Amino acid sequence: MSPDRPRPRIVVAPDSFKESLAAPDVAAAVRRGLLAADPMLDVVEVPMADGGEGTAAALVAATDGRTVPVRVRGPLGEDVDASFGMLGDGVTAVVELASASGLELVRPQHRDVLRAGTWGTGQLVRAALDEGAARIVVGIGGSATNDGGAGMLAALGARLRDASGADLPPGGAALAGLASVDLTDLDPRLRQVRLEAACDVDNPLLGPDGASAVFGPQKGARPDDVRFLDAALARWADALSRATGQDPRDVPGAGAAGGTGLALLQLGASLRPGVELVAEVVGLAEHLVGADLVITGEGRVDAQTAHGKTPAGVLAAARAAGVPTVVLAGCLGEGAEAVLEAGAAALLAVVPGPAETAELLAAGAVNVERTARSVAGLWLAGATATRSPT
Amino acid sequence: MSPDRPRPRIVVAPDSFKESLAAPDVAAAVRRGLLAADPMLDVVEVPMADGGEGTAAALVAATDGRTVPVRVRGPLGEDVDASFGMLGDGVTAVVELASASGLELVRPQHRDVLRAGTWGTGQLVRAALDEGAARIVVGIGGSATNDGGAGMLAALGARLRDASGADLPPGGAALAGLASVDLTDLDPRLRQVRLEAACDVDNPLLGPDGASAVFGPQKGARPDDVRFLDAALARWADALSRATGQDPRDVPGAGAAGGTGLALLQLGASLRPGVELVAEVVGLAEHLVGADLVITGEGRVDAQTAHGKTPAGVLAAARAAGVPTVVLAGCLGEGAEAVLEAGAAALLAVVPGPAETAELLAAGAVNVERTARSVAGLWLAGATATRSPT
Repeated sequence: MSPDRPRPRIVVAPDSFKESLAAPDVAAAVRRGLLAADPMLDVVEVPMADGGEGTAAALVAATDGRTVPVRVRGPLGEDVDASFGMLGDGVTAVVELASASGLELVRPQHRDVLRAGTWGTGQLVRAALDEGAARIVVGIGGSATNDGGAGMLAALGARLRDASGADLPPGGAALAGLASVDLTDLDPRLRQVRLEAACDVDNPLLGPDGASAVFGPQKGARPDDVRFLDAALARWADALSRATGQDPRDVPGAGAAGGTGLALLQLGASLRPGVELVAEVVGLAEHLVGADLVITGEGRVDAQTAHGKTPAGVLAAARAAGVPTVVLAGCLGEGAEAVLEAGAAALLAVVPGPAETAELLAAGAVNVERTARSVAGLWLAGATATRSPT
Repeated sequence: MSPDRPRPRIVVAPDSFKESLAAPDVAAAVRRGLLAADPMLDVVEVPMADGGEGTAAALVAATDGRTVPVRVRGPLGEDVDASFGMLGDGVTAVVELASASGLELVRPQHRDVLRAGTWGTGQLVRAALDEGAARIVVGIGGSATNDGGAGMLAALGARLRDASGADLPPGGAALAGLASVDLTDLDPRLRQVRLEAACDVDNPLLGPDGASAVFGPQKGARPDDVRFLDAALARWADALSRATGQDPRDVPGAGAAGGTGLALLQLGASLRPGVELVAEVVGLAEHLVGADLVITGEGRVDAQTAHGKTPAGVLAAARAAGVPTVVLAGCLGEGAEAVLEAGAAALLAVVPGPAETAELLAAGAVNVERTARSVAGLWLAGATATRSPT
């Protein structure tokens, strides 16, 4: 707001408000509120995501891209109508593992972490290559699997054989019978493509901090299963290393998504925090140059938020650019003030009064818009105070 | 925030958050939040009220005064432990009619608008005179009565007689038998004292907009009662006018508190909006000189707020002083945005998430403090923006 730039610029970079508003809708509601306070504000909408569910949709919307539907093999072999996003640049694809191999795709009573596989995710990557993607971002949260990404690699051309030379059936448990991996027929386009995984955990593949021990139980693995799956993943890591000549099993993130992190690392992918990757894809840093204020937010802000969620990532980027940040929340949970300790200028819930969750989810846009109006009013009041002589 | 005054001054002038926090507690919570954002802020606490319930307590707390207990005759003649406030200046008393003659003092099934009287309020005024009050502010909301303040005047020395010369019994209905008013023995100290009534209605004494017609029914008057009481009040106004030589029955506010407005006017009182009177008593305008921001608020902000409630009064005073105003709300009701249309810079509810009313009432201080912290952070972010070259 220096005299030579009379229109303050506000960057609006929220995540979705889960079950209430998609990120672009949050951004649009914030914009309406800001302009209600002052129609002269320069509002830049940069809908965000953190690599989790909804990332592809948010990025498609943010970049005016398109969603490409693909019928794939689901976690247990059933047909699944999945999709990936081709972004507005025409060369970046965003694949969500959860879309093809996600825990949510299997009814609780049918979940089978021993048999579940990532074949469908490999099909999505292949479809993205078919669309001409030169860069593929893979969000690897929410998997139903513990197959070390073996299914994904198989779908991309890898051959997994048992001691008799027969193809291995899918699933993490089958890896216990793995004898060799042959990467000869791996899709050659994978060598050209820039592959990046949005990954918010730093678990190694194996051991007490590994995929089977830490994430197996929430996918249905009993203690015996965990031991069995861990040993099977070790066998998979050994065979893969023999095939590639490298061994990234201890790289932080190798254990993400039931070990899919390992397979992606073996394909040459870099693993990065989701919100960082998203920020790069949407050009957040560029948008922040010369901005006066950033407004971010998510449906629920709590102690987790400061650990890699979108508001934390946007806050970090804004701080690097010297721009103050306001965090809006659909609701505040335990430990939410951590984002203030991390440097946010303000943290405000958009809730207008006593209400049940369903009511608040339904009124998300109105509540966000109303709160944004006052954010602008208050911020402008501060800006005005310094200019008026007293 | 000019360079010669580096400590921004924030005036905190809230009403109570009803059923949750008294005004001084709201102010203290706001202070804690502001100082959490920046311990260098100069925070001035000016707890407010609007002339309604809690006004005496708020002003006693704001001025470091004291509460004086007085046993008085209640609306229907029963003993009532009432009180008034002697403010820190030692000369200003604040009397609430509701404390002695209020509707809340009578159980619904016992309410009797025909017989209820304001004798107790007169006793409070007399007690205030006994304490040496040179200025008496009377809050006249919430009455159980329709006696035109006759009881109050009687308690202060007036004699009301019927045609036979006998003293009139208390209550509005008895005024139908009034023959004469004798003010000879009226407490002579009333001629010296500065008498002011906090009054937020502009009804005349009589007729379709008068005390009986407009407020009678909510005190239990049936249509027949309304006609009877209106005629009785006319008789009272006639007799009083003969005794004083003046006739303020049509002055706006004469019909307030079952016509107590008329009696106060006849005693020379000025009737003023409650929040204006309170603002004057606490010296709000003086506190606003040189302030950079004002924070006000109340438990519920809705369409009524802009009509004479505390936030509206504080906002008006702040606008006159050129200071931006933030309104905090325990909850937002229909039409709350009217305070923004009236010029508030921001309107923010302090609610953190889905919650029931009881939960929010219990967590008032925490929620106010948390929100105030972000108000300061955001306002300071605006203030900082103008100073950093871009």
